[in-house]
Amino acid sequence: MTNTSNVIAADIGGTNIRLARICDGLILEEVRHQADFSVLQNMSKLEAEQHILHTLEAAVQQLPLDNVQGVGIGFPGFFIGNSGVLAASPNIPQLSNFALAKKLSERLSMPVTAQNDALCAAIGEQTFGAGQGHANLLHITLGTGIGGGLILNNTPYTGESGMAMEFGHLKVEHGNESRLCGCGNRGCVEAYASATAISARYNELAGINTSPKDIYQRAVNGNQQAADILESASMYLGTAIAQAITLLDIRTVTISGGLIGAWDILYPNIMTALNANLIPPLQGKISVIPSTLQDNAGILGASKLLD
Amino acid sequence: MTNTSNVIAADIGGTNIRLARICDGLILEEVRHQADFSVLQNMSKLEAEQHILHTLEAAVQQLPLDNVQGVGIGFPGFFIGNSGVLAASPNIPQLSNFALAKKLSERLSMPVTAQNDALCAAIGEQTFGAGQGHANLLHITLGTGIGGGLILNNTPYTGESGMAMEFGHLKVEHGNESRLCGCGNRGCVEAYASATAISARYNELAGINTSPKDIYQRAVNGNQQAADILESASMYLGTAIAQAITLLDIRTVTISGGLIGAWDILYPNIMTALNANLIPPLQGKISVIPSTLQDNAGILGASKLLD
Repeated sequence: MTNTSNVIAADIGGTNIRLARICDGLILEEVRHQADFSVLQNMSKLEAEQHILHTLEAAVQQLPLDNVQGVGIGFPGFFIGNSGVLAASPNIPQLSNFALAKKLSERLSMPVTAQNDALCAAIGEQTFGAGQGHANLLHITLGTGIGGGLILNNTPYTGESGMAMEFGHLKVEHGNESRLCGCGNRGCVEAYASATAISARYNELAGINTSPKDIYQRAVNGNQQAADILESASMYLGTAIAQAITLLDIRTVTISGGLIGAWDILYPNIMTALNANLIPPLQGKISVIPSTLQDNAGILGASKLLD
Repeated sequence: MTNTSNVIAADIGGTNIRLARICDGLILEEVRHQADFSVLQNMSKLEAEQHILHTLEAAVQQLPLDNVQGVGIGFPGFFIGNSGVLAASPNIPQLSNFALAKKLSERLSMPVTAQNDALCAAIGEQTFGAGQGHANLLHITLGTGIGGGLILNNTPYTGESGMAMEFGHLKVEHGNESRLCGCGNRGCVEAYASATAISARYNELAGINTSPKDIYQRAVNGNQQAADILESASMYLGTAIAQAITLLDIRTVTISGGLIGAWDILYPNIMTALNANLIPPLQGKISVIPSTLQDNAGILGASKLLD
């Protein structure tokens, strides 16, 4: 028996909550909930906190809890170090300084830890997936938004206020003509290369509102506009990765998210832009690897938070 | 007596070498040498190594060595961790895997350590200067080139191959129209905001080849073109700093170099561009502070390498 045996891990998204009982990286059983966090918008801070705690408590109790050592939670927000205190959550603005882990621990009478969801994905990928064996790892979550998680010397890096690795908000274009991002700024890589941005950009170019998966299929079938958008998105991604490598000098990057289904188009363009934007001694030295855990990266990483 | 007492520190530049006997951050005496490293260009790797070792040995021996505990060297190049092994030096391409610290230690029969010059400046500024009291610090050296040094949790950060914080090569413009940098790429902040770039850009705009100091004086005297170049350079600097903060989430940035003589023009523009490029929860939270050590940051940092 190792120290990861029998924990409950939770992966909290904007529209659903997933919980699993996990032993040494093996998902034993799981439950999924629809969780519409938009209902939180009209609640006070206290009401929203109680709603989240109640939802999580009820979900945990659907799983068998005998011999469970505790609960690890991946949550979309900024946590102060390893305190389990949520400093802020971009999607639930009324939450601030919310002692999520401590409050849930009191309700469940067992240890609870919580950490940023993209950082959990990085921990999962480094422990069980494509990042295994790499003490330093940059993990990028390529979904409706773009997130990042960083492991330095086998330690998750959170920054001074839990806001490190806001990878999606690295700038890849400049000026007033650059695309508007959900964060309110212009030119962020998320505004060019996220799933949402790829659909929007293809719609602007081709007048067809469809999914990145369909855009990829069109590209494979010879549609030049679809290929152009995917190529452009992956070049922007490579440019943003180069900024991170220029500062961090780490050699291994993993990428998860539905978009890696288009890896055969993404990969060569990511590498071209990455190498074009690195200082010469680093060119050709960086490995960019697709996730092997995909949707499970976050929940498996959350299962390691109690170690 | 503390553990910094009586060390020799060296600050190696492209055109001169400076050595000082330092006790607890106090420079007791110093020597300066002209050192034209361009003579190394026609030498073999072995000849270049011997030339550097001989030059440093002779310089150290000009200082009184009684009770000296060892030598700390700041050198323009990439060092592997704390090994004192120079992996590469952009300006002296034939040097690679050069055990600078070990070889000089053998010649001098005393402990020697060596580290990247910009990282030494960061250590100096954090220990004795404007970065005091900050466990996390990004230090930028704003000279003929632009360098960076990073302290995370009171520990100098070097990256996997000593090439971390190549701050000058963050991209602030994109595309074929952007300025060519000495590294061979386009759009680097060094190509827009270094002393060299400021002189070149003013010359292109005004047809006058002069120093950044003179350009600053012209701006103060009401010359709009001079003011425009300095404003633009500092906006680019702020944009690059924002990229670093977006990834690292640290709160304190110090800047050294001759250009900070223009701080009254630089500072407001750096802050405008910095805040415009940060995610909203970090806007207004970052301190950017001029060096208080200036030319002494590197040599004082090198004096701490033996601790």
